[in-house]
Amino acid sequence: MKKYNFNPGPSILPEFTVKNTAEAILNLDGSGLSVMEISHRSKDFEAILNKAVELMKEILSVPEGYSVLFLHGGASLQFSMIPYNFLNKKAAYLDSGSWASKAIKEAKLLGEVNVVASSKDANYNHIPKNYTIPADADYFHITTNNTIYGTEIKKDMDSPIPLIADTSSDILSRPLDISKYGLIYAGAQKNLGPAGVAVTIIRNSMLEKVVRPMPTMFSYKTHVENNSLYNTPPCLAVYACLQTLIWLKELGGVNAIHKINLEKARILYDEIERNQYFVSNVVDAEDRSIMNVTFVMKEEYKDLEAKFQELASSRGLVGIKGHRSVGGFRASIYNAMPLEGIQALVAAMKDFEKQA
Amino acid sequence: MKKYNFNPGPSILPEFTVKNTAEAILNLDGSGLSVMEISHRSKDFEAILNKAVELMKEILSVPEGYSVLFLHGGASLQFSMIPYNFLNKKAAYLDSGSWASKAIKEAKLLGEVNVVASSKDANYNHIPKNYTIPADADYFHITTNNTIYGTEIKKDMDSPIPLIADTSSDILSRPLDISKYGLIYAGAQKNLGPAGVAVTIIRNSMLEKVVRPMPTMFSYKTHVENNSLYNTPPCLAVYACLQTLIWLKELGGVNAIHKINLEKARILYDEIERNQYFVSNVVDAEDRSIMNVTFVMKEEYKDLEAKFQELASSRGLVGIKGHRSVGGFRASIYNAMPLEGIQALVAAMKDFEKQA
Repeated sequence: MKKYNFNPGPSILPEFTVKNTAEAILNLDGSGLSVMEISHRSKDFEAILNKAVELMKEILSVPEGYSVLFLHGGASLQFSMIPYNFLNKKAAYLDSGSWASKAIKEAKLLGEVNVVASSKDANYNHIPKNYTIPADADYFHITTNNTIYGTEIKKDMDSPIPLIADTSSDILSRPLDISKYGLIYAGAQKNLGPAGVAVTIIRNSMLEKVVRPMPTMFSYKTHVENNSLYNTPPCLAVYACLQTLIWLKELGGVNAIHKINLEKARILYDEIERNQYFVSNVVDAEDRSIMNVTFVMKEEYKDLEAKFQELASSRGLVGIKGHRSVGGFRASIYNAMPLEGIQALVAAMKDFEKQA
Repeated sequence: MKKYNFNPGPSILPEFTVKNTAEAILNLDGSGLSVMEISHRSKDFEAILNKAVELMKEILSVPEGYSVLFLHGGASLQFSMIPYNFLNKKAAYLDSGSWASKAIKEAKLLGEVNVVASSKDANYNHIPKNYTIPADADYFHITTNNTIYGTEIKKDMDSPIPLIADTSSDILSRPLDISKYGLIYAGAQKNLGPAGVAVTIIRNSMLEKVVRPMPTMFSYKTHVENNSLYNTPPCLAVYACLQTLIWLKELGGVNAIHKINLEKARILYDEIERNQYFVSNVVDAEDRSIMNVTFVMKEEYKDLEAKFQELASSRGLVGIKGHRSVGGFRASIYNAMPLEGIQALVAAMKDFEKQA
């Protein structure tokens, strides 16, 4: 049975990435060596890393004066790296979900944090609005997509202070105006590659703001100066990311994938609205994520959740169980999820409506 | 042409690891999903992680009261994690090489460091001896194998304070008496798997010594309490490590591989001593590493180095160039290097002697 992988992360990757990574593990470009076995200082790996950096810059139209890094530690390590590098007097954070609040927790360990707004009291079912970014803070941190709740900040905002964004679950899903950001970062395991590597795009002038000594592995300056080779990078994971970037460029880049993503999300949200059994978890339509579509059974049908889960499983729809803090269902429809996957899920929802 | 990969790291891995990892990338145990695409909270991944922990404990005869972790960030991140967790008053370090000195640098950022001995003035061509471990320090840090220089501490030492060892380049190459260590750690990319994961074996009572708040990703306690799942682990790299552990167990474990490693090293060191062109980089025979064999051309033949390098390359002997700080040659003969690889290198050395 064909499976459709709706896992929230680690999650579906393009077949192109999967096949090429498996091949390179057996024999990298006919070298007779595995991509797991080559030195990170070799010309072969240098070419892989540099190509990944180049494609990331090209696909996201990264302006001059920015560096692209591939680092260890996932987004979680950067929750700490960011305040160590940039929190001098005070930092501002938007609390839009569980990951945002983890980033806030790490910053608070180091200094003063101004949480400008939070939707926690509503179990994060919308993006907080009507707040002011304090002009005297060192930076403003946002989480562009909230995987658990299915909310997303879909526009690049203006900020009077450096804007730092955790884009782990929507990077490369739409065009970004990188010039509006001081730094963006993302764990790879949604739209890029396997867990075990994170990408960072940093405006080089941000590095001048650093005032404190810190663990060397925290230092963006060190990583920029060493082109992500201060320590042995996760070479295999970088290789897999490169394959996804090649795939995405072939497909037409972020403009092309954005159109597809909007269409995929529209079809699914339309069905959620139409179907008498389901309702979206996100109150404001404008906040609805195009990457993680969360929905629950209407109050009166709550006891049918297990039945729909069963139907979905029987049709090879994998990973649609909602996060325990939200319940219901979550379809993670990252870049690599084909339209057929959405159609299969919608068909299951329609059939459920008929049978129930 | 058959290639023998003498790279210092990332380095040769067992064919078993390479093949099974490639297969699992295409289809994990017939699940229809790639090992890169499954959730780290899934039963499938839980089984992989738990089996890797179990085999690590079994193969290294880890006593009760220890935890095994698979973490992000390589050994380099643990250079900082160790002082953040355990340096309260003062830490003691042995400076046996460049990696040891990097660990020292990170500890010094946080507190008082007593470097009990150093062989730096001799370009680390031996393991420092005749020092006293200060009984009032919080821990004593050693680097068991010095990849660049080809020296190794081959016996588990007695220490009046918790002994912490970076075993990145010789873990699993010989039996270890884990009970003598408070903590050992190792980047995976020598004897375990691809770069991008590190293993830590920690005595649980060490966790009681922690006195300061710290970045959550630094906290061994957090990682132990979450069974390495505080954040998304590098799942693919953990899978590859598991394959190597299965391979090693099949082969007879550390006792069996130790015998093979001793034999491989003996053959190569014997040839270095016998051959009129070469000389070992390491002055004290007892310090010579069984993992990284460093040797140089004798002073009078220095100008022939490029010629031997050429001969080696023409025979598919990859990665034998010495580190720039030592020069000459380095054959990294980790667990996965077969005896034939050593024989091919020795044959090249003998033929070189005849032709030169």
